[in-house]
Amino acid sequence: VSRHLLDALATTQALCGIFADAAVLRALLAVEAALARAQADTGIIPARAADAIAGAAHAERFDAAEIAQAARRSASIAIPLVEALTARVRAADEAAARFVHYGATSQDIVDTAMALLVLRALEVLAGDQRRLGAALRTLSDRHSGDVMVARTLLQPAVPTTFGLKVALWFHAQRRAWRRLDEAAREAAVLQFGGAAGTLASLGEHAPAVTRALALQLGLAAPAAPWQSDRDRIAALVAACGLLCGALGKMARDVSLLMQFEVAEAAEPGGGSSAMPHKQNPARSAIVLAAATRLPGLVSSSLAGLVQEHERSAGGWHAEWPVLADAMQTTGSALEAARDIAEGLTADTGRMRANLEAARGAVVSEWLSTVATRSVGRDQARAITQGVLARVSDGVALEVAVGEFPALRDTLSADELRRLGDPAAYLGQAEQFRRRLLEEG
Amino acid sequence: VSRHLLDALATTQALCGIFADAAVLRALLAVEAALARAQADTGIIPARAADAIAGAAHAERFDAAEIAQAARRSASIAIPLVEALTARVRAADEAAARFVHYGATSQDIVDTAMALLVLRALEVLAGDQRRLGAALRTLSDRHSGDVMVARTLLQPAVPTTFGLKVALWFHAQRRAWRRLDEAAREAAVLQFGGAAGTLASLGEHAPAVTRALALQLGLAAPAAPWQSDRDRIAALVAACGLLCGALGKMARDVSLLMQFEVAEAAEPGGGSSAMPHKQNPARSAIVLAAATRLPGLVSSSLAGLVQEHERSAGGWHAEWPVLADAMQTTGSALEAARDIAEGLTADTGRMRANLEAARGAVVSEWLSTVATRSVGRDQARAITQGVLARVSDGVALEVAVGEFPALRDTLSADELRRLGDPAAYLGQAEQFRRRLLEEG
Amino acid sequence: VSRHLLDALATTQALCGIFADAAVLRALLAVEAALARAQADTGIIPARAADAIAGAAHAERFDAAEIAQAARRSASIAIPLVEALTARVRAADEAAARFVHYGATSQDIVDTAMALLVLRALEVLAGDQRRLGAALRTLSDRHSGDVMVARTLLQPAVPTTFGLKVALWFHAQRRAWRRLDEAAREAAVLQFGGAAGTLASLGEHAPAVTRALALQLGLAAPAAPWQSDRDRIAALVAACGLLCGALGKMARDVSLLMQFEVAEAAEPGGGSSAMPHKQNPARSAIVLAAATRLPGLVSSSLAGLVQEHERSAGGWHAEWPVLADAMQTTGSALEAARDIAEGLTADTGRMRANLEAARGAVVSEWLSTVATRSVGRDQARAITQGVLARVSDGVALEVAVGEFPALRDTLSADELRRLGDPAAYLGQAEQFRRRLLEEG
Amino acid sequence: VSRHLLDALATTQALCGIFADAAVLRALLAVEAALARAQADTGIIPARAADAIAGAAHAERFDAAEIAQAARRSASIAIPLVEALTARVRAADEAAARFVHYGATSQDIVDTAMALLVLRALEVLAGDQRRLGAALRTLSDRHSGDVMVARTLLQPAVPTTFGLKVALWFHAQRRAWRRLDEAAREAAVLQFGGAAGTLASLGEHAPAVTRALALQLGLAAPAAPWQSDRDRIAALVAACGLLCGALGKMARDVSLLMQFEVAEAAEPGGGSSAMPHKQNPARSAIVLAAATRLPGLVSSSLAGLVQEHERSAGGWHAEWPVLADAMQTTGSALEAARDIAEGLTADTGRMRANLEAARGAVVSEWLSTVATRSVGRDQARAITQGVLARVSDGVALEVAVGEFPALRDTLSADELRRLGDPAAYLGQAEQFRRRLLEEG
Repeated sequence: VSRHLLDALATTQALCGIFADAAVLRALLAVEAALARAQADTGIIPARAADAIAGAAHAERFDAAEIAQAARRSASIAIPLVEALTARVRAADEAAARFVHYGATSQDIVDTAMALLVLRALEVLAGDQRRLGAALRTLSDRHSGDVMVARTLLQPAVPTTFGLKVALWFHAQRRAWRRLDEAAREAAVLQFGGAAGTLASLGEHAPAVTRALALQLGLAAPAAPWQSDRDRIAALVAACGLLCGALGKMARDVSLLMQFEVAEAAEPGGGSSAMPHKQNPARSAIVLAAATRLPGLVSSSLAGLVQEHERSAGGWHAEWPVLADAMQTTGSALEAARDIAEGLTADTGRMRANLEAARGAVVSEWLSTVATRSVGRDQARAITQGVLARVSDGVALEVAVGEFPALRDTLSADELRRLGDPAAYLGQAEQFRRRLLEEG
Repeated sequence: VSRHLLDALATTQALCGIFADAAVLRALLAVEAALARAQADTGIIPARAADAIAGAAHAERFDAAEIAQAARRSASIAIPLVEALTARVRAADEAAARFVHYGATSQDIVDTAMALLVLRALEVLAGDQRRLGAALRTLSDRHSGDVMVARTLLQPAVPTTFGLKVALWFHAQRRAWRRLDEAAREAAVLQFGGAAGTLASLGEHAPAVTRALALQLGLAAPAAPWQSDRDRIAALVAACGLLCGALGKMARDVSLLMQFEVAEAAEPGGGSSAMPHKQNPARSAIVLAAATRLPGLVSSSLAGLVQEHERSAGGWHAEWPVLADAMQTTGSALEAARDIAEGLTADTGRMRANLEAARGAVVSEWLSTVATRSVGRDQARAITQGVLARVSDGVALEVAVGEFPALRDTLSADELRRLGDPAAYLGQAEQFRRRLLEEG
Repeated sequence: VSRHLLDALATTQALCGIFADAAVLRALLAVEAALARAQADTGIIPARAADAIAGAAHAERFDAAEIAQAARRSASIAIPLVEALTARVRAADEAAARFVHYGATSQDIVDTAMALLVLRALEVLAGDQRRLGAALRTLSDRHSGDVMVARTLLQPAVPTTFGLKVALWFHAQRRAWRRLDEAAREAAVLQFGGAAGTLASLGEHAPAVTRALALQLGLAAPAAPWQSDRDRIAALVAACGLLCGALGKMARDVSLLMQFEVAEAAEPGGGSSAMPHKQNPARSAIVLAAATRLPGLVSSSLAGLVQEHERSAGGWHAEWPVLADAMQTTGSALEAARDIAEGLTADTGRMRANLEAARGAVVSEWLSTVATRSVGRDQARAITQGVLARVSDGVALEVAVGEFPALRDTLSADELRRLGDPAAYLGQAEQFRRRLLEEG
Repeated sequence: VSRHLLDALATTQALCGIFADAAVLRALLAVEAALARAQADTGIIPARAADAIAGAAHAERFDAAEIAQAARRSASIAIPLVEALTARVRAADEAAARFVHYGATSQDIVDTAMALLVLRALEVLAGDQRRLGAALRTLSDRHSGDVMVARTLLQPAVPTTFGLKVALWFHAQRRAWRRLDEAAREAAVLQFGGAAGTLASLGEHAPAVTRALALQLGLAAPAAPWQSDRDRIAALVAACGLLCGALGKMARDVSLLMQFEVAEAAEPGGGSSAMPHKQNPARSAIVLAAATRLPGLVSSSLAGLVQEHERSAGGWHAEWPVLADAMQTTGSALEAARDIAEGLTADTGRMRANLEAARGAVVSEWLSTVATRSVGRDQARAITQGVLARVSDGVALEVAVGEFPALRDTLSADELRRLGDPAAYLGQAEQFRRRLLEEG
């Protein structure tokens, strides 16, 4: 009963595996085994019991579907799992069975197992993010001097470079990644508090067991158990939302550049079942789908923060699929963005041609600023519109400019020459581009 | 690679099956087969080809994981499926292969298949809803005369009956269900538009094929293809959100009534791994988790409405998991709510005792209204607070009332007698209760 | 302390007024006055008291800012208002003061006042919606025969008509409007339940007072008070979300058509402070901003549904600004959409030119379907791609087709002729268009 | 046309002022004046012009409502403001008018003005947060030794201390505050990019003007203009969501503790219009309303991230009210939380009494752990349930324990003695408490 088809664009093979039953079982059982080991090391349960527990804690011996079904009775997947584990341990070593899950509560096991899965997912995401970053950096450098029209509200504005555009994509995903990476590391910590967060059942041994358990699992231990303070998880989901937003912006740009009428860039691949000729922005669609979905996942995650007392009824229980979906969908977007960045082809000739076609439009800011020097804002607007009207009647830009004294008399010879060269009106594009790549 | 464990509280066995790969494949292939049959009936493809296509369209012969993986290249699960189906048809009947998916586009197949799944899911939900409604109706009738304290902002207010409380749950879930049922039926319609919604590839045969296809699948055909107008789907997801909100309100009430210090009602079951005595509101937690999650799913669904031209890049692609999650989570909440309603035990003695304990408090509205008759609002407040202070000093309510002339002289003998009987201060509780059940 | 500037694009003058302090005060006081009148009519308070209360209930005599500040102490705007009203009544008629707000609770007043405001806002929205619908209908009729390229995933697909595109906008906004109109009428009902929803303080007079009050205010009375069942409000906010989504789809299309490189349509107006030439999709930006914002407002609204017992702490209190923002933002989007529809200019020449430019591409579905008749799907794809390659080398489409026997031998003379005429490949465009307008 | 009433619980007086028209106008004009000054300092406009611009840039001379109305034509509040400012400058100094808004674009002015407002709002929030933190710290210290029942899923679990509960509130709000403070400082940076983010209109003077402008305004300048990369703003809104979630958890706890049947703590104040006796959790309701609303605001904010090219149509335009609402609502929650923390009264006697009443229940984890030492998990559960059954029959706990050999023979004398003392079963409560306060 997998849902590969409906989730095809919302996860990747690797991430699907990390949050699938086998991996979740392995993580839950790893926590139970590490707990027993930590308690044996601390001397509060026999080493033999820890061995028996570890020996029984093999994921393949448990039936995830059955455990999931049973979980609906207690609203906890750990309770039926602990029962099943205890039965298996008892079968092997009667005396050891009493030490299964000793002093812990369900949420300790589930939260800590989720921390392990988050770290594994982070690693997968990090791999794609590194490749995405590297590809964007290369792309930006390659096109540092390729001019194109900048578009504001989807209308031609002034010239810019494709290199700067890509550098902005690069920096945005870097900022977002740093937030996500930091949030994941803060979220992936040990939860160990016993029945209600005081570890009373372990008496004086609690600190030593906690330290040993954290060590076993390679997780940090926070100042106190956090079973009803889920802000770290919500911050991680929010960081996924911010990253998908940044990737979505890039994908929106790519899909717009790929339009037949624009045709300045194309991502690789993307067929249609009805129209053989089509090259669709398929990977952009995957990224945009993630950016469409994440805001809602973040909202679900934040809504769960209002938890009751020492363990909530509902807030916590909403968390697992939301966290898993957020990381899987983000990973899907990262993989698709990586493919876009690595395979993007830019048509710099078409960029120049589109800029040329919009030439009158794109010099209007400059003309207006120049005219302002001699005549003020309102008249400068009128003059600029006059020039553009002439250009759209077919008059050459340089000629049209010469017809308006406020412009002609203000422009230096050098400036007049630059009118014909968009590359001369790039301002700080290259400086900004370099700074973005350096900082990233 | 199922995710039974993380989704344990967010779906049910039945719904999990409806949106799982096997069922999705069956639905997609059913649409392809019905299309071929409709075209054969209309005479535009040979009947033999339709037979060959139907013969090859068996879900178990396709590998969902492989198709899902391939789908990432085209952002469509239908494209690789159609390729695989074509290959299987060709193997059986070379000539028939050319008529696979004839005149259709990917989205036609996926949207129409989703419509079929929505109707199947609706049936499952309807079963639980019927049982929930029936159980609530019975519960309300059984407790029509059982007084309890009404609580506003979690503080004791006036008396009410448990019967009215349950009738309000009943009516709210009925209203929400009617919305959901209607929305699902509006959403589950044929999508058939060809490459871009004009059905041009079928020429003059388009209307006949459309009619035949709708008939084959038992779906209504809307005024026009709706491939980039997804409001019907979003309205269905919103209706799921409204239903989960209504169920969440009931579950919140139950979990509050179940508190040790309140103990007026209890849902069945609900253990803890650390504390053997505990009876947790486990099913309420499942419902509340759904109510926590749905607002975000609705938000994702609405965000996808802003689609580009005749088929969107991203908005549509975000829809499948959101719709499936919304229906599965809603179904999980309905099943849990059904179990709560069918198994709820009410402790009417405890209800009376809690009411008695808060007795001073709960008559304060009435005292205040009575005193207002002789002395006006502000003084009435002061008098009421005076009475309550005496009561909390241990003075009997009737005695305390007698100490304040503004009350003593206004109250009729009958009224004085009713002071001691909360059942005499129920207002329209029973009338409201009956009307709610009648209307539902 | 208005927020005209930050809310400039998120409300309209009319709607801003409806939810502003003066109007809210008027509505709250109208409910208090109607309550007194209803009680006088029912004989439970003196007519003179009702006159005094109505006489004092003038919005301009109250200080909204002061009441709002005081409201933070009780989490209720009605409590300080009732105090202030009582003081004013007492100043005029000592005896009448005791009958202010008699038997009611704060939420009765606020909820019922909001119902009045919702109806007033609905009227404003309805006016713009009517004009929007009429303008779209006219526009669709005017362009029923104007062919343009349909675009899927932002790539050229087959031909369609601008008339059909507009008819789809029309039908989507009609569907959404019907939902909103119905939801608003269901939500705008009397709330009258007294302290906790039983109306006990009014004893046997409760039904008569309720009827009289509903009559006074022109509101329907539901089966029972609904103070902690807010689904009707949330359904209204959700309907706003659905409408903004439909309008957002239209605005997205307009902004894409308005691109310099596409230039098939333009909304009126829209300047830039830096670039005098620019004609920005300013009104589309307003609509798209609303569509960006609404999903979150709906999510907030749904999150508030999980309310405690007979009056919630927090869920209700979150509702006022969310409901007001939803209706104001939706109204802003409707007004902007109305202006777009009424002022939209279509460049049908450019539509044809763009279609011609993409001609090879747009006939590919047809070529593919035709070739499928003789050679099957896979080979048909290859043939179609071959034809398109020839066309992009500059070969005329008809010539290129002639080079491939699978096409040449299958196409009838009539079909060959139609190759050159996109208007001959419109399928059901006009039939769909008419049906959409008829149903709307 | 203020909306004090509907927003009464969603802002504070101070924050309302910061985002109100007068303050927004002041901020916008401050940016225009600083720009002129920076350009005069850099020598590209005459000092006299800068003086004239600064002289005209007085908020009280502009009509916010008129500017807001005009803004709907261009989807920009800066365009009509610049026009009005230019007119005023021209009236004073004809020659200076041409240097108004020189080289800038609308979004530069609005974004930078918003940065100024964010910093002002942050200061207000910081004041309340400091007081909240200090009050919680004091409260936690005061109640470090006061035992109470910990509650999981709203059921009694083991003992804990009120001091630890408060310390967890403290640490959660500290973590959230640090995120918010950092996010606000990252978001409140200069935006200065000219027409499309290259500052081309300022030629070689761009870096110097940027530096001077940042200096004038006391803002940092980022690596490059960020006009269509809004992640910093969205991260700030998300941080508001996380803080409101943390405060909401505290308010939920307080409202639950304040229940009549629990009565362990009470926030100050909170009346009812119908029931004079009531002390409602009014400030908790304000906080919970904020926590209900914020997830949706965060979702709106994230949805806006997918922006087109160098300036978006819609994504940016949705941002202003969302950001202002998020900060105002968060400030409202902080102020209310501050009042709760500063005025909270704890009834430690009642805490002990409730613990005593649930005594059997709260020792069950311990009994179970102890019994596990001799007999294993399953039998230990049965024994514990046996003891609890005896206790609920009225048998003293110590006696009941003695009846079960598996317990009696395992418990040391010391342990038996501690059975009667919940304070002896607090585990690491005090250690956790101290660590939380130290780290905070």
